Amino acid sequence: MSPVASSFDFFKDIQEELQIVEAELTRTIDTDLEVLQESSTHLIRAGGKRLRPAFALLSGSFYASMLSTVIPMAVALELVHMATLVHDDVIDNSTTRRGRETVKARWGNRISVYAGNYIFARSLDIIAGYRRTDVVNILADASMKICEGEIIQLASCYDTDQGLKDYLRRIERKTALLMSMSCHMGALISNAPPEQVKALSRFGYYLGMAFQITDDILDYVADEEVLGKPIGSDIRQGIITLPALYALHYGADREKLVAWLSSPEACQERALQIIDMVIESGGIDYAYTIACSYVDKARAKLVQLPDASAKRTLGEIADFIADRNF
Amino acid sequence: MSPVASSFDFFKDIQEELQIVEAELTRTIDTDLEVLQESSTHLIRAGGKRLRPAFALLSGSFYASMLSTVIPMAVALELVHMATLVHDDVIDNSTTRRGRETVKARWGNRISVYAGNYIFARSLDIIAGYRRTDVVNILADASMKICEGEIIQLASCYDTDQGLKDYLRRIERKTALLMSMSCHMGALISNAPPEQVKALSRFGYYLGMAFQITDDILDYVADEEVLGKPIGSDIRQGIITLPALYALHYGADREKLVAWLSSPEACQERALQIIDMVIESGGIDYAYTIACSYVDKARAKLVQLPDASAKRTLGEIADFIADRNF
Repeated sequence: MSPVASSFDFFKDIQEELQIVEAELTRTIDTDLEVLQESSTHLIRAGGKRLRPAFALLSGSFYASMLSTVIPMAVALELVHMATLVHDDVIDNSTTRRGRETVKARWGNRISVYAGNYIFARSLDIIAGYRRTDVVNILADASMKICEGEIIQLASCYDTDQGLKDYLRRIERKTALLMSMSCHMGALISNAPPEQVKALSRFGYYLGMAFQITDDILDYVADEEVLGKPIGSDIRQGIITLPALYALHYGADREKLVAWLSSPEACQERALQIIDMVIESGGIDYAYTIACSYVDKARAKLVQLPDASAKRTLGEIADFIADRNF
Repeated sequence: MSPVASSFDFFKDIQEELQIVEAELTRTIDTDLEVLQESSTHLIRAGGKRLRPAFALLSGSFYASMLSTVIPMAVALELVHMATLVHDDVIDNSTTRRGRETVKARWGNRISVYAGNYIFARSLDIIAGYRRTDVVNILADASMKICEGEIIQLASCYDTDQGLKDYLRRIERKTALLMSMSCHMGALISNAPPEQVKALSRFGYYLGMAFQITDDILDYVADEEVLGKPIGSDIRQGIITLPALYALHYGADREKLVAWLSSPEACQERALQIIDMVIESGGIDYAYTIACSYVDKARAKLVQLPDASAKRTLGEIADFIADRNF
């Protein structure tokens, strides 16, 4: 099942708002510098699941019937996500993302760094527009932690000594924090009671963890057409995710795997063999079990929330992640 | 006269505060990620004129005898400046800055992009700590414009069709905006009357314009030992500054200059010949005249401010820029 195509089905209650978010994303990049305008909107037109705007809108919809207050925040959250994508592209020498050329491939490293900065600054501008200092503090704190996560990921490439804790910290900062922040912000600016803001924030966190783990599994076992890129791209970059970590500890031929995963050349040339070893070790099942335990934690947070159609939707998203077929 | 050594003499009244800023700059990069800590503090240890903190402190000192409120802002302003330096290094393939290895040369592009992001996020965190939405708005707005300026600079490399307006817009965003913001913020958080906040903001703007023009002149005529880098580094990168713009319009051999300045190869190989042509055209004198006109505008803003020792100091800095010997 394609995570891209099907995730939209969950968002039918906020379809109209998501359309406004989409239009605002384009409108918000408002500069008379052609190259900046083009490079920034290029990324927006490439689409995406808009998970972060959806989480903010759904979280807000528990407390507000009109979501117009949440829409600028939803736009800002997607911009933060996009800014990290542009900078990731600069760095990984990626040439396509979501089947389109990356900003970097088309405009070069220089423009990409500045475009990423510009998109982030624009999102700060929108968030500042709420005139709420708590909201700016959350953004500042999350931004620092996201940078740390990106650096942790770099430092841990080809590092076969890393443990489960290192991996979890990394995906927390790479994915869970911004998902958590999306729920948090949506609830906060809709004046949710503090304990429910916290419950939604934790829900987003746990679901983000589960989402990233299943995404990491897909890099081993997905249908390449559905994934939109060849499998094994993490391995090729030396990124050791949960299935490989399991294989490094419990696989049949651990010494060979250590040697290969710590060598950039072997990671490139033996990616498919490494994938087979990881699958044979049971690493996929293990990672899936961990993902499901995060989904359970997310579901437990939903219990603390009032009845609303968003509660059902968020539960369905949790089910979807737990039901991904591996 | 070295702009680095002598500028400190103006800051004797705020020497103690600047020392606290210096200590805070190191303390503020508080991460347990070794590589991030090292790459960020590396830049701080490289020093610098700390002009932006000084402008914030001097602006605040008109209205507050205790500058402790201004110190975090002064730190944040220097961090914003540093974040742009780290990203500039990534992009220009610079390997030294202020006589030290750049972050990029030592840690690679990837870490540098993230270190720049982290430093910016840290400064946002400090600014958010003021719990004043006006202050965050100013930062967001300036950040977007600074990004635009960086992109304008890229787009204008080797472009011999650019005019005076393009150049002025570029240096406004590259330098004057953050200088202006430094004065603005220092006055604002010290509760200066609005018309004086505006006067100081404009003072910083005009002085920043003059400062950048004279800095651009130095790249043609400075003593290399004092400058800390070979002259002609702008030309070699295809950056056409005010002296060259004048020569392109009024020089003796305009056609040859157009051909050379629009060719990356000629800019590399003929940098010294280009410098001679620009000097012969009178471009240095012209640029100096424009710089002085900005200094005059800055001085006119000082008149609107109350008597204080900071007023004398800011006037002396203006005089220093106007008196740079070319």
